[in-house]
Order: sequence, then C-alpha cells, then structure tokens
Amino acid sequence: MSEIDLTIDHRLPATDETIHSTWNNALEPVLTIEPGDVVQFECRDATNGQIDQKSTATDVPAIDISQIHPLTGPVAIAGAKPGDVLTVDILSLEHHGWGYTLVLPGAAGLGLLADDFPEPAMYVWDLEDGVAHFTNGIEVPVAPFPGTIGVAPADDGEHETTPPRAVGGNLDIKHLTAGSTLHLPIAVEDALFSIGDCHAAQGDGEVCVNGLEAPMTVTCRFELQTDRSLEYPQFETTGPLSSSGREEPVFGTTGVDADLHEATKIAIRGMIEYLHHERGLARDEAYILCSVAVDLKVNQVVNAPNWTVSAYLPERIFPTANGE
Amino acid sequence: MSEIDLTIDHRLPATDETIHSTWNNALEPVLTIEPGDVVQFECRDATNGQIDQKSTATDVPAIDISQIHPLTGPVAIAGAKPGDVLTVDILSLEHHGWGYTLVLPGAAGLGLLADDFPEPAMYVWDLEDGVAHFTNGIEVPVAPFPGTIGVAPADDGEHETTPPRAVGGNLDIKHLTAGSTLHLPIAVEDALFSIGDCHAAQGDGEVCVNGLEAPMTVTCRFELQTDRSLEYPQFETTGPLSSSGREEPVFGTTGVDADLHEATKIAIRGMIEYLHHERGLARDEAYILCSVAVDLKVNQVVNAPNWTVSAYLPERIFPTANGE
Repeated sequence: MSEIDLTIDHRLPATDETIHSTWNNALEPVLTIEPGDVVQFECRDATNGQIDQKSTATDVPAIDISQIHPLTGPVAIAGAKPGDVLTVDILSLEHHGWGYTLVLPGAAGLGLLADDFPEPAMYVWDLEDGVAHFTNGIEVPVAPFPGTIGVAPADDGEHETTPPRAVGGNLDIKHLTAGSTLHLPIAVEDALFSIGDCHAAQGDGEVCVNGLEAPMTVTCRFELQTDRSLEYPQFETTGPLSSSGREEPVFGTTGVDADLHEATKIAIRGMIEYLHHERGLARDEAYILCSVAVDLKVNQVVNAPNWTVSAYLPERIFPTANGE
Repeated sequence: MSEIDLTIDHRLPATDETIHSTWNNALEPVLTIEPGDVVQFECRDATNGQIDQKSTATDVPAIDISQIHPLTGPVAIAGAKPGDVLTVDILSLEHHGWGYTLVLPGAAGLGLLADDFPEPAMYVWDLEDGVAHFTNGIEVPVAPFPGTIGVAPADDGEHETTPPRAVGGNLDIKHLTAGSTLHLPIAVEDALFSIGDCHAAQGDGEVCVNGLEAPMTVTCRFELQTDRSLEYPQFETTGPLSSSGREEPVFGTTGVDADLHEATKIAIRGMIEYLHHERGLARDEAYILCSVAVDLKVNQVVNAPNWTVSAYLPERIFPTANGE
C-alpha cells in the first residue's frame, strides 16, 4: 500500500459538495479526468460521520438512513461512451486506525438474520499493525477494499445505493483489495464513477449487513477499453483468498436446503451457535464476527433439489491459534 | 496422504454386495466397527464403472442413471444412537491415475446451466504428479475428497443419493480433503455410514453437475461423540482454500441479481464466455473447467434486493502462468 513513485493527478476531498448518497446519471461531475489519470479519493464512512469511536449501541436507532453510503464523485472520464469498459486499478487504501460494525434493528429488516437479531448492536474496532481487535483476544486480519464502487446507471432518476447493479455499486466484493483491477460496464456518457463505503475487513457474505466500516483514503488509476463490452463487472485480484492468504486451519458449518438463501442462513446460524457455545461470544458478537471474518462458499448448486452452502471461520483469529 | 504408521482395522472392498445406490436405514450393515477404528474403503466412480478411460461423449446418453453414486457401506458404528455425533477423520484418499467429467444431456435437466448445454460432453483426465491435465496445456491441481459422505436418514424407505441432507450425503464440500474432520448428526441406531463419489478436484459450486470423478481408496477413522448433538454437518479442514493453498492471482466474474441462484448463473455464464473468447476453450470445455476449477463465493446476501455472487478462476492453471 505504499504510494512511493506514484504520481497522483487529482485529489478529491470528501465535502458536502463532492459526495452523493443516491446514484443518478444527472449528477454533475465533481471532477473530469483523462484515461490514465490517477485519482486519490477521500471516502467517508458508510453513515457519513454519524458514528464515531465513542458511539455505542444506544446511538444506532438514531442513525439517519438517508445519509447511508456517501459516495465520493461522480468523476467524469473524458471520452467514455455507453458500451465501453472502465478499468479501475485499485492502487492503495489507507484507513485511519478505527472502524465499526453495526447490527441494525429488526424493524429495518437489514441483515441475513434480521428476524433473529431484533436489537441494535455495534462494535468499534481499533486497527493497528494489520489487525483489527475484537473481544476475547480475537484478531481479524485487515484487508481494506471499497464496498461500493461503480458507475452511473443508464436509467434516469435517483437509485438507492444499497442494491448493487450490473454497473457495479454496492458489490461488497472483499477481494477488491489494493493491487486489484475492476472492469465495469459503462452505461452513460463520461461513465460517472463514484466510490465509498470502505471496509477494513469483511467475510464473504457480509451477513450482519456491514463489514468493518471505516473512513479511508483510496487511490485508483482509470483506463478506458473501447474495443470490448461487458454485461457485468469482472476483476483480477491476488486476494487474500483466505484469511492469511495461505493454507490454514478453518472450521466450517454447513447448510443444506432447496433454497440457496435458506441454506446460507442455516450455515450462518450454525456458526453463530458454535461461536456462542464453544468460543464464549455473545450471540450478537458472533453475528458481527461472522460478518467481518467468516466466508460463505457455495459448495454445490447442482444436486437438486438440495444445495450446499458452508460458512468458513479461520482458526488463526483466536488467541490460542495466534500464540502457537 | 502417507499411510505410514497407520493401522487399518478393516478393509472394505467395493463389490456388488458392499455397495448401494440409494440411502435406506433398513439396509443391513456390511461391516460393524468400534469407535476409534480405522476403515479403508474402496470406492467406485460415480457411474459404477460405466465410464472408463476410453469413453467418449457418445457413451454419455447410454449411462444408466439408476447406478449413479454407488456408495460403499453401510458401516455400523457400535453404540451409536440417534442424537449422537459421528466424527470422521478423513486420513487419506488415493486415486488411480485417471478420472472424468461429464456434461449430461439437457433432457435430464442436470447442471446449473442445463438449458445452455443440451448436448452431452465429457473429458477424461490423466492425473499425475499432483495435477490433472486438461486441453490447451491447462493443469488443475489435484485435491481429492469424497463427494458423498454421510449416515442413513431417519425417514424410512429409499432416498435418492443426489440431494444431500442434514445427515450428509452428496455434500460435495471440496475442502473435505485428507487431514480434514467431518462431524455428522446421527439419525438412526448404529449410524450406518456410507461413502463414495470421490472427486480428484472440484470448484466450489460443481456447476456442470460433477467434479473430476474418479475411483479411489479412502481411509477414515471414526469416533462417537455422545455428549453433543448437531442439526447439520460441521467440519475442520486446512483446505486448500485456494487453488494452490496460498495467495495467487485469480480472475473473477460477477453476478448481480435479486435471486441468489440467478446471480450464480450470471457469474458462471460470464466465466464461460471469458474462457471461450479470451482463453480459446470451446464452451463445453469451459463449462467443464468451471465445474472442476472455478470457485463460487457469496460476496454479499444483505444489500437487498440484489445479491452478489462471483466466480473465481486461478490464473496458475494456464501454461503461461505455469511457466513464470
């Protein structure tokens, strides 16, 4: 994540003038760049500063949801046409030493297990030396990425930032770490790229509705590909694909069901019970840890009528494993 | 996968008397063991020997589906009671140097993209020095595991082997490699364990309906846990969690949709088009490669109404990457 030898062509701060909280292809660009340019973005946290290091669960119900996902942009890429591909090299992400994870009230219906967790909860994480500190001595490796990254949709009008779309947005692909490259289908003139909602860590699945949310500084290089088209995003990454980026012991819980979503819930419920009974975490702590450090893999989607989904917990995050 | 110093208490060959192709708690055990015993199982390939190294796609329509998944067993574990947990240490798997992958005709409706691939296809793989050889110089790392592993269901009568259940079965969890441990909920007296359908490699998802199918010799140790219960399987593994068991470049295609299954299809369709256009594979070859070497991860299931699923292709399987 070093920026040595990296020429930054543009720096875009996060001000009330350079952020937006809905996708809209009528938004005026806050910056126009040429293909090949490098842009450094300041990105606010997903609540737009409503949560700080002193916040507690009692502050969660008061969060103004309309401010969720302040995105920095849009940036116009000169010459970009609908049908082209925008290639984004994610060069570096720098957090500011802290972050948080929320469990939002059941009334909002947010999270894979919203019905199981009706009460708000939150955890504020310290980030240092590449790890995020949790309760019970648990240390989660830090691997920052932008949760939301995309270009403006073709359809006119305002579009919520929560659902991702074919043009990207709230993809929450945790492998879009520094060194990765994302290819996005361009839907409008000048592409209109925006970024934000950065996570210092996340499990595949992001089950409690957010990862380890953190304000960050993100640097990207932009290229245009005018000789190919895409229907959906594609990317190149070196991961980490496992918690440590190498082979390591993991514990898995399995869901089997005719509905892929239900199989996913079964796997995560099994993991929460394991973390509660075997590892001594409160259930809401376990839910938060699943969202930040447990990976969901689709084992099979072909053995009709039942599919298999498993949840993978790296052993190395626990103090005993750390000390070995 | 060495068996040095391993005492094998029982050897169970695969004969017409020791295999079965439906789950049924009324089947007589072919072997009764004590907790702590080590059993070596011969396991036939998933078609029960209907495919050999000389088979071609023209042989696929004649496959007798009723013989699919010949499982070796059942093995009675003395003292096992419903509600106990059967712990299976998977000690070693030895393939016999070859395997195959099928695309079954669209009429059978098998595979994630059955509608896209109405014609039968197959590929016979040579396995040597830890890799499986494919077209175009592609080499897939070999990481054998039992596709089907489980105990008899509580419900009386015959049950198809294709769908997995809470008691295990056709789970197709590719991380159940040698050195892994699987915990299964026991549903009937003596547990009645069976195993088979071994794969020398598989991607998470197993999208074309089978992995790299191969006859194998599998050795397991069995333990009973009488002081805990499980609703669904759990496991411990050291992977490999990525193709090489360590950080490595991968290429990803992304699916975004309100239906998790459809998002999965989009991701795999994108990967097949990539392998066809950028890597020179025929589309059915690409589909087969996806089933054997491409991993499906659930990126997020919480950004309603749209979920993200991505397919991950390791770059190292290609000859250029191999030569670097």
